[in-house]
Order: sequence, then C-alpha cells, then structure tokens
Amino acid sequence: MKKIMNKPKDFVQETLEGIQFAYSDKLKFLDKDRRILVSAFPEKKGKVGIVTAGGSGHLPVFLGYVGKGMLDACVVGNVFASPSASKMAEAIRACDFGAGVLCLYGNYGGDHLNFSMAMEDVAFDEIDTIAIQVKDDVASSADPEKRRGVAGMVFAFKIAGAAAERMYSLTEVAAVTQKALDSIRSIGFALSPCILPEVGTPGFTIPEGKMELGMGIHGEPGISVIDQMDADTLAGTLLQKLLEDMPLQAGDTAAVMVNGLGATSLEELFILYRAVHRRLEDLGVSVYMPHIGEFATSMEMAGASLTLMKLDEELKGLMAAEAVTPFYTAANK
Amino acid sequence: MKKIMNKPKDFVQETLEGIQFAYSDKLKFLDKDRRILVSAFPEKKGKVGIVTAGGSGHLPVFLGYVGKGMLDACVVGNVFASPSASKMAEAIRACDFGAGVLCLYGNYGGDHLNFSMAMEDVAFDEIDTIAIQVKDDVASSADPEKRRGVAGMVFAFKIAGAAAERMYSLTEVAAVTQKALDSIRSIGFALSPCILPEVGTPGFTIPEGKMELGMGIHGEPGISVIDQMDADTLAGTLLQKLLEDMPLQAGDTAAVMVNGLGATSLEELFILYRAVHRRLEDLGVSVYMPHIGEFATSMEMAGASLTLMKLDEELKGLMAAEAVTPFYTAANK
Repeated sequence: MKKIMNKPKDFVQETLEGIQFAYSDKLKFLDKDRRILVSAFPEKKGKVGIVTAGGSGHLPVFLGYVGKGMLDACVVGNVFASPSASKMAEAIRACDFGAGVLCLYGNYGGDHLNFSMAMEDVAFDEIDTIAIQVKDDVASSADPEKRRGVAGMVFAFKIAGAAAERMYSLTEVAAVTQKALDSIRSIGFALSPCILPEVGTPGFTIPEGKMELGMGIHGEPGISVIDQMDADTLAGTLLQKLLEDMPLQAGDTAAVMVNGLGATSLEELFILYRAVHRRLEDLGVSVYMPHIGEFATSMEMAGASLTLMKLDEELKGLMAAEAVTPFYTAANK
Repeated sequence: MKKIMNKPKDFVQETLEGIQFAYSDKLKFLDKDRRILVSAFPEKKGKVGIVTAGGSGHLPVFLGYVGKGMLDACVVGNVFASPSASKMAEAIRACDFGAGVLCLYGNYGGDHLNFSMAMEDVAFDEIDTIAIQVKDDVASSADPEKRRGVAGMVFAFKIAGAAAERMYSLTEVAAVTQKALDSIRSIGFALSPCILPEVGTPGFTIPEGKMELGMGIHGEPGISVIDQMDADTLAGTLLQKLLEDMPLQAGDTAAVMVNGLGATSLEELFILYRAVHRRLEDLGVSVYMPHIGEFATSMEMAGASLTLMKLDEELKGLMAAEAVTPFYTAANK
C-alpha cells in the first residue's frame, strides 16, 4: 500500500492533528476526543450556525470548509463512516449563536440517522434546527430524493455560509440553500480505485482501458463500466447526463466545478474543463466562478466529477461573498 | 494509460487553454502560439518584472503563479521540456515596465541555456535583466551550485513578486530573492512513477513496499531506493537531510511546505505535516505560514516533498504580502 501514514488506526486522528497544527487561526477542536472542528473566528451573535458531518477520506470535504463564510463546525467520522449522533449534538450546541442551526450534509443513511437523533436531542435545549441533505449525484438514482451527495455540497456550503453571514434567519438560510441544491447536479467517473488504510487492498478494480461512469465517492457502483474515452467525448457525456436532469438554455449562468478525486493531475482536470467550457459556451451558457481542483476526493482514487449550479442573482452574490477557510478562500468582490 | 486527455500531442496546449478559460481575470496569452502567459492585472509602471519558464507537467508550477504579487509572465514548454529562447525573450520584453526584469527559474540545463540566450537578445533593447536559478533540492547534488530546482521555487516566486510589488529596484529584488533561496532547502520522495502523455508507459517503476528518496520532479534518480517507512520516521529522515544542510536552532522561524507530487492524498500530506510540525516544535523552531497541498507536481506521481525556508523579518513580511494568482492567494495581513 503506497500510503504515507503511521498506524492505520491513527489515520484520521493524525490527519486532523496535522490540519489543526496548520490552520489553528481558522479552526480548532471543540471536544477532548478531537473529532469536532469549529471555526476559530469570533462568534457572531444572532448568526445562523452551519454544521456538517461525515466520514473521513474526502479532503477537503468536509472539515476543510470550516472557518468564516462557510461552515461553523464539522464532525468527523472514521474513513467512509458517519460520526456519532452525540458528537453531532455537541457541534450543534456549540454553533447556536441565538438564531438556530442548519444541519447540511450528504444524503447517506448513517449521517441522516445520526443527525436526526442529534436534532431531537438538542430540541430539549430549545435549539431550532433544520436539516438539509445534499442529493446532487444524478448517477446514483433516477429518483432525486434517493440520490447521494457528492462534490456539489461544496457549493451548498458556500451558499449557506454566505447567507448566514448576511444574517438571514434560519428559515431564510434553509430556503436559499435548498434553492441552490435544486439547481445543483453532479456526476463523476473513476479510473482507478482507492485503498482504505485499515484494509490495505483496493475494494474493487477497474481494468486498463476502462472507466466507471457514475461511481460514488466511496466506490459505490456507477451506471456502467465503459471504455475509456477522450476528454472531449467524456465532457460531452457528463454534460449530457447533467443537462438531461437540469436543462440549461442560452442566457443562463452556471457555476462549474471540475473536481479531481485524488490521483488525477491538474493538467487533466483543465483539459476536461476546457471541453466543458466550450460546450457550455456553444449552448450560450455563461460560466461564473469556475472551480477546478480537488474539492471532494476519495483519497487516491483517479477520476473526476463535474458539477453545475444554475445561478440567479441572489446565488451569484452569495457565491462571490467572502470566505476564509483552510481550503477555500474567496475575496469579497 | 489512465489519463483524461485527447491527443497526447495536444496535452499541453489544451491544458493551457483550460487554464485561460478558467482564469481570464488573472492571466492571458501574450503570443499567437499561446505558450506565454502574462498577468491580466494592470501594469504597474516602474515595477520590476518577474519572469519564469519551464516544462509542463508540474502544475501549479510554473504558470499557476502568474497574476498579482508573484510572477508577471511564464513561458511554457512541452511536458518536462524547456521552452525556446525566443519565447523567453518575448516574455521578458513584455514584462519590462521600466525597471528591468528578474528571470527566476529552476537550475536545469535547457532552461538556463535558453534564458541566457534570451537575456543576451533583450540586452540589444537595453532591457536590464538579472538571472537567478533555484537550486533547492539537497538530494540532487552535494554541490549547492549543481542542485536542481524543485518546490522551493514557489517560495522564491512569492518573495520576488512581493518585493517587486513594493517597488524594490531590480538589484534589490534580486538580492532579497537570492537571500530567500540561500535559506530554502527541499527534498522529495516518490512512491510511484508518472507517465508522459506522449509515451504512454512509466519511465521507471518503484516496487511495492519501496520508495525512492530524493527523486527529482522529472523522475531523476534519487539518493537511494529504500523500504517504505512510516510517516513519522519519514518526516524525521527528510528533516534530517534538510537540517544537515541548513541548521536551524531554537528561536528560528521557518516557512514549511509539504508538497504533494500528484497522486498522494491530502490526508497523507497532513499526516506528514503533523510529524514535521512536532519535530520542529521540539527543536524550538516556529512554523510560519505552513503550505500543505499540491504546489509543484509530477503529474500523477505519488509522493511528496518537504521544503523549509528560514525567515528573517523582511522575508516574513514578503511572505505575508498580498498575492492573487490562479493557484496561490494570500490576503494582505
């Protein structure tokens, strides 16, 4: 296993410790077990808190977006595993600045169950909460309600965090975040697997010359195993899957994310982005704030995902607002 | 070959086009062949120009640092190959804002030869130039003058660019950049090879359970092929090699970069950083502005490098100054 680590069982804790050493100006541990990271920026009384949670192995997702203008807290689970409900409740309590807390997380069974319990728990303390699940992966189900959350959640974190900074109420933050999510679609593909540190061997293989379209960020099976295609054809295929589900027309504006899953080079991501950009331009769609890089990974998996978010004026403004986190910085425009 | 691309011969050009589409607010093509990228920010009369050049396949190095507060131009070669002297001369001419141009590049034969010819060429136009080579890789030679330039060049770009923004003269920019380089040391290691797009197969292999210490970013042979070691031991080994060459003592301050070569996950980089941070702390050395991520890659090579830059007050100030480029953003502190 070609991984830089110490004992596999310490993989998550040591990752978190490294992050905390590096970014102590932006985030800090809340709990003694060091599984809850909260913003190190001064609390803003009356601001809605934004809390997420999820398994490890997806950096910068999730905790890399804790700071100012995005998330107030993130609860961290083991690799590809949900953290506990009690830790989520602790994070929610810490992020109630008097205006309630939005729980914003990927649509995965464990995360949903645990957040539901945590929200029941904090209700006894009279903390208002609203839960929103990210369900952007069009490949994961034909039913929009059953879809998994993938890289599109980073756009949702940005919108929710910016709305909270503008002192929207909890209902308003939830409404604009849901509006954003209704306009976000993603699809990914994998070229090679990743290895769980505590397992040591890949959970699946993808033969040379093949790729898996629609594979999830934990290696969930995709739509189909297909022949590797060139970047331009691939861009067309990915875009088609997204636009079938959420049509865009000439005059529309969209944020675009080309997200590397881990082992794919930046050069390749830009070759893919080039093709996406050209096709959108051909359709008369304007690209706003393109995001190309690693935003939501599966450790050393090779492959990428494409996310589109259709924008109105409100969403454009929230995307452009200031954010300062370890892995996402936006200057106020 | 698990790469997202079209024709291998178009790999570089299409990468550049994707970057230009994404960041047209920060950089633009100077030439019709589209191999010279210059800053899209307004020219500052009387500012020293900072120009670099080098082969492709190392994103964000080199062109990703063109913008404001770092590089004014970058000339882009084919994968792992130097661009031409005539293109370098064209870039230098475009970046003479009346105060001369610093040519700052890695210590590689082709780049040095071509920059030397370019500088002779622009001398006819009475453009002052000074050349500085980055030679930070301690593993590449016992003789400091023969060392290759690797990830430490990103710190050099930052220092030179910030000094130029402060309207230092050409001699002063060169002096502070050389001072920074005299305090920068790097060493890398590889766990797996990368594949040249036009070749299609790896140029070398590293057996399972082994790693190559001191390997260059083009796959140049390192000091030794050794057994894979755990992250803490590896951090100690890397630090020892750097500190043998540039001792640090209690009370010193250093900038630290843990740079992923391409396929290594962010989780692993933070596990490595954690160990480096702890060891420096044990030595009484303060870490200033740690950089963890992909700053200088070898496409999909797995592995990382460690860079230290010993800082004085002037260098600290220049590191903290504002920079706005596609892959490096620093807010003025």
